[in-house]
Amino acid sequence: MGRLERTVLGQPAHRTKLATLVLPKRRALPLLGADSISSVAYAPDEIILMLAFAGGAGLIYSPWVGFGVGAILLAVVGTYRYNISQIAEQGDYQLVHRRLGAVPAMVLGASSMVDFLLTVAVSAASGSAFLQAIWPGLIPYDRWVAISLVLLTTLLCVRGMRFMGKISAIPTYAFLLLLSIVLVVGLVEAQFGWLSRAESADYYIIPRTNLDQALTGLGLAVLLARAFSSGAVALSGVSAVNNSVKFFARPKKTNAASTLMLMGAISSVLLVSILYLVEKTGAKVVADPQRYLMVDGALVGENFYQKPVLFQVTDAVFAGQAMPVLLSLATVGILMMATATAFMGFPLLTSKIAEHRYLPIQLSARTSQNLYGNSVLVLSATAVFLVAIFGSDVNSLIQLYIVGVFTSMTLTQTAIVRHKIQQLRVTLDRFKRRRVIRDLIVTALGLLATALSLLVVLLTKLAQGAWITVLLITATVGIMLMVRKHYSRIDNDLELDLETGAEEARRLPSRVRAVIYVPRVRKPVARAVAYARASRPSSIEAVAINMHEDSTKEIIKRWEQLGVPVPLTVLDSPYRDPVTPVMQHIRELKQRSPRDVLVVYLPEYIVRHWWENLIHRRTVHKLAAQLRRENRIVIAQVPWNIGKETEIITPSPLAAQGDSRG
Amino acid sequence: MGRLERTVLGQPAHRTKLATLVLPKRRALPLLGADSISSVAYAPDEIILMLAFAGGAGLIYSPWVGFGVGAILLAVVGTYRYNISQIAEQGDYQLVHRRLGAVPAMVLGASSMVDFLLTVAVSAASGSAFLQAIWPGLIPYDRWVAISLVLLTTLLCVRGMRFMGKISAIPTYAFLLLLSIVLVVGLVEAQFGWLSRAESADYYIIPRTNLDQALTGLGLAVLLARAFSSGAVALSGVSAVNNSVKFFARPKKTNAASTLMLMGAISSVLLVSILYLVEKTGAKVVADPQRYLMVDGALVGENFYQKPVLFQVTDAVFAGQAMPVLLSLATVGILMMATATAFMGFPLLTSKIAEHRYLPIQLSARTSQNLYGNSVLVLSATAVFLVAIFGSDVNSLIQLYIVGVFTSMTLTQTAIVRHKIQQLRVTLDRFKRRRVIRDLIVTALGLLATALSLLVVLLTKLAQGAWITVLLITATVGIMLMVRKHYSRIDNDLELDLETGAEEARRLPSRVRAVIYVPRVRKPVARAVAYARASRPSSIEAVAINMHEDSTKEIIKRWEQLGVPVPLTVLDSPYRDPVTPVMQHIRELKQRSPRDVLVVYLPEYIVRHWWENLIHRRTVHKLAAQLRRENRIVIAQVPWNIGKETEIITPSPLAAQGDSRG
Repeated sequence: MGRLERTVLGQPAHRTKLATLVLPKRRALPLLGADSISSVAYAPDEIILMLAFAGGAGLIYSPWVGFGVGAILLAVVGTYRYNISQIAEQGDYQLVHRRLGAVPAMVLGASSMVDFLLTVAVSAASGSAFLQAIWPGLIPYDRWVAISLVLLTTLLCVRGMRFMGKISAIPTYAFLLLLSIVLVVGLVEAQFGWLSRAESADYYIIPRTNLDQALTGLGLAVLLARAFSSGAVALSGVSAVNNSVKFFARPKKTNAASTLMLMGAISSVLLVSILYLVEKTGAKVVADPQRYLMVDGALVGENFYQKPVLFQVTDAVFAGQAMPVLLSLATVGILMMATATAFMGFPLLTSKIAEHRYLPIQLSARTSQNLYGNSVLVLSATAVFLVAIFGSDVNSLIQLYIVGVFTSMTLTQTAIVRHKIQQLRVTLDRFKRRRVIRDLIVTALGLLATALSLLVVLLTKLAQGAWITVLLITATVGIMLMVRKHYSRIDNDLELDLETGAEEARRLPSRVRAVIYVPRVRKPVARAVAYARASRPSSIEAVAINMHEDSTKEIIKRWEQLGVPVPLTVLDSPYRDPVTPVMQHIRELKQRSPRDVLVVYLPEYIVRHWWENLIHRRTVHKLAAQLRRENRIVIAQVPWNIGKETEIITPSPLAAQGDSRG
Repeated sequence: MGRLERTVLGQPAHRTKLATLVLPKRRALPLLGADSISSVAYAPDEIILMLAFAGGAGLIYSPWVGFGVGAILLAVVGTYRYNISQIAEQGDYQLVHRRLGAVPAMVLGASSMVDFLLTVAVSAASGSAFLQAIWPGLIPYDRWVAISLVLLTTLLCVRGMRFMGKISAIPTYAFLLLLSIVLVVGLVEAQFGWLSRAESADYYIIPRTNLDQALTGLGLAVLLARAFSSGAVALSGVSAVNNSVKFFARPKKTNAASTLMLMGAISSVLLVSILYLVEKTGAKVVADPQRYLMVDGALVGENFYQKPVLFQVTDAVFAGQAMPVLLSLATVGILMMATATAFMGFPLLTSKIAEHRYLPIQLSARTSQNLYGNSVLVLSATAVFLVAIFGSDVNSLIQLYIVGVFTSMTLTQTAIVRHKIQQLRVTLDRFKRRRVIRDLIVTALGLLATALSLLVVLLTKLAQGAWITVLLITATVGIMLMVRKHYSRIDNDLELDLETGAEEARRLPSRVRAVIYVPRVRKPVARAVAYARASRPSSIEAVAINMHEDSTKEIIKRWEQLGVPVPLTVLDSPYRDPVTPVMQHIRELKQRSPRDVLVVYLPEYIVRHWWENLIHRRTVHKLAAQLRRENRIVIAQVPWNIGKETEIITPSPLAAQGDSRG
């Protein structure tokens, strides 16, 4: 392994060191909780954006939507915490696979995969938006900033989870500390009426719908539902903790459960507090500001740039001071940790699915650094593709996002409910029954909450872009089914039944016949002949192809000069094709001796660099490819390394005194 | 070979049929003369374009430039005809290689290659221009028409020279017949003053240089030199005949010589006649008409389209009749035949150079249709690339064109002159000496003419684009030198000296040791074990890699169940890399037995379609690639074809009664 590789990827991880990664709670929270907590960087914007469809008047509902999202989050976290022992052993993919079967597990797997992908894309997009807010010079480089964030996080993640565990504490706790200061100061200022108004407080939002209808009855319900759907991104990080219970320090379940609760509580409180301050400062964001936002009675121009609400609020609380910049940097940091969470969760998930043979086996291969390298590459490449399309347009990405989260949560909770019901059937002890029933009720309520949320999200987002996600999940499941079918076919084909068939598997072919392919009589051929003779086959034969008479004569002459006791057969190739005559000859030989195995020796010189192959006619490669399609055959390649060898039969320093048999 | 392939490429050509292609003169002229004759379709335009730099007044010199080009053409053809016996046996590449050495031959080869390429590009571009003249709807599809012409000719050419010899007569003789009618009628009309003026006769050309200076003294000389350089494209076809003497019917040399003369005479007469009629009809073309052409006192608009002068002249002679369309179609036809000439000459040339090992050996490989398929592909692809850039802009392509022609002609004639001088030294007979001296003088004059032309062309065209050609030729020669060096190194390395080294080449390694790679104990492994055992090696061993403990246990268990007398070695791979431990083990084995050869059996299942490999981890491929870098090794691949096989040791229908040994 090169020095560069070692620097980028870190030291190889010996097998004995693999199981030892254990995260104490203080490290688990920043690493695994980053996904959930960081969503308060963009969730408020999404809620405001949606409410702004009804104009500025809709914004007063924002704290309430925040409460709704927080409530659902706590409900989900609560259920999960309750059932941590179910999830802990397996992770939700295996849980669903065991309790609900293969197809639901594949749907969950595909949903989670899409969800991890969108975590990366949304976090990078949002990080790019915050960087643009503190450094407007980056605005034209929108996509490039987002792509750089993805690639940078990929580079950090390939250093492994241990490394990320160490560094993740800094941005996460910095974010929590700074944000707490802003929120406490802001809430105090608001209490005493000292809070400044945000810059965007006096902007006017052009409502997209009839205002009177929008804020009454069904209109209001739809509006709130849509805002809730967007805000629900805050729930996306929950499963990261679920699937990583094994990384917690002992007692694992207790630690995981309390981390989960802590994370849920933090995210809920932060979300509601931010939304409250948004309301108080009058900060605004809208989708498509060029069409729907007016400043001083005129539409904002083409070059108008909208800052994230968290930035606006911080700016209002600490006007003109360093805090907005500091908090933004910390936000970018925690968003990168969220990305890192996805970069750890995705490969764990795909490797499990690949072990179930629903995904290409390569996704379960670990590198010497104990990394599912192929998975990381797949995630990084697709995320770069996504942000290359969407740039820092978080709003468009959000439309694709939340469907997958609720799909997988609903499936997981259904699996737990089913398990509890089964448990209830076999539990006869009255006291235990009561506990199971209590668990069942809690889980069923959680399931109801997520199922209803999924319904709301599907109804409000399907037309906005979530259809892409549904399509993506469906396609992924389709691919999984095909991959599985392919593997099964191959397994069936290769299966060796040793209970009854061991006798047959021990049978030997009658004889071994050797055939040596002779392109020109040079050193590689002489070596192939020596090796073929040394293995003492029942019959041995050399074959040359007659393509041009002159060169054929030369081959025959030199073969005689070589003087080995091997007959040379010249195969005519009137159509200048070297492969077909050999293949015909081989097939004839096979037909003549149907119980023998044929060993075809292919002498081949190996050039030093791959590009040198471009100017060599590699007839032996074509021959080998054709020969692989035959049965009862061994393709015996005899390499000769150009520039590294001079002796046909390499004499050893030891053997130099004596000599080999002649 | 598939039916489609046979339809496109024609029947395979058996070796015995290859030497029989002979072209009678009536077929040789249209096929081999097309390149030269077809140049009258665009050479007049190029002469006019250049003279038009000095405004409309310059055009009166056009017939004189035509005379100059015609004279040089006849001089070259005359010299070549004189020396046909020199060139006949060899073609000019071999002639120069023999008389002047390797580097001049490479320069000639590279020049001719570039020249053939530009013949294809210019002919396709000009053909596209004529099609646009008769069907203006094609004007926006400029590039696509030119590309289609290249691809269409490629398709015709892959049917082979015999086929082209048959069909080429039609367009060539049609072109000659129609053009003769136009010219005779036009000359008669001009004589009697009945000739109409061309549509462009009243256009005004804005001179680019000061008119008074341009048409006197040095200015005039430069102008004429530039016009001559452009018109000299008419000489490009001469070497096609030179290099194809062997295809002529007997007496080959006489027939070739008279075809050459006939071709030169036809081209010269046509060129001068066309230019005379251009002068009489006042037809005009300019480079960049949007800037330099005025109609009715105003610049022509963006959409102005300039027709080729041959079309304009025909239109003037046969106003409003079908003749312009018919002649244009015949012109496109003969231009395609010119392209075909290049498609035949280029592969012949590159195959000779490749036989000298200055170009990749693949270029000398012939397909079953006796076609240098790779050369045809290279030429077609690069020509498509060129016309994709230049479209039907013949003028820009012409700037690249003519340098190569004169470079190769000058080299060829230098070679002949040197040969004649050498001949003179050894010829003592007075009568013979006189003949040699006469030959020498004629050839030297021819050489002088082409060398001077080359000088004029270089001086006038280098800045216009010919530098690209010079660069291309230099780069090609550089590549040739590198290729040759690479091949020489490999030849030296592989050379087997049988005079003194035959004894050594017959030595055998001491023992054969077999190592079987065991990924999982399935049918392919059982087969590999059977084949390895059947070849009775001195020692035999199976190796498995311990990557995951569970699967390793499974392998060990199943190996014991299999019950073959082969010990299984489990190699530990703590870093999850299956290749390195095997390689280390192999190297240790080799070190322990330095006079033995190691046969590494790699069981491999072969999937039906290449894309199925994408979802298989092909460890055996990686292993094979690494093993190829070793010496004293045989890589024995044992294929198992998925879906085609069921038995480990295939029992034959014959062997089914008896049974194989246990």
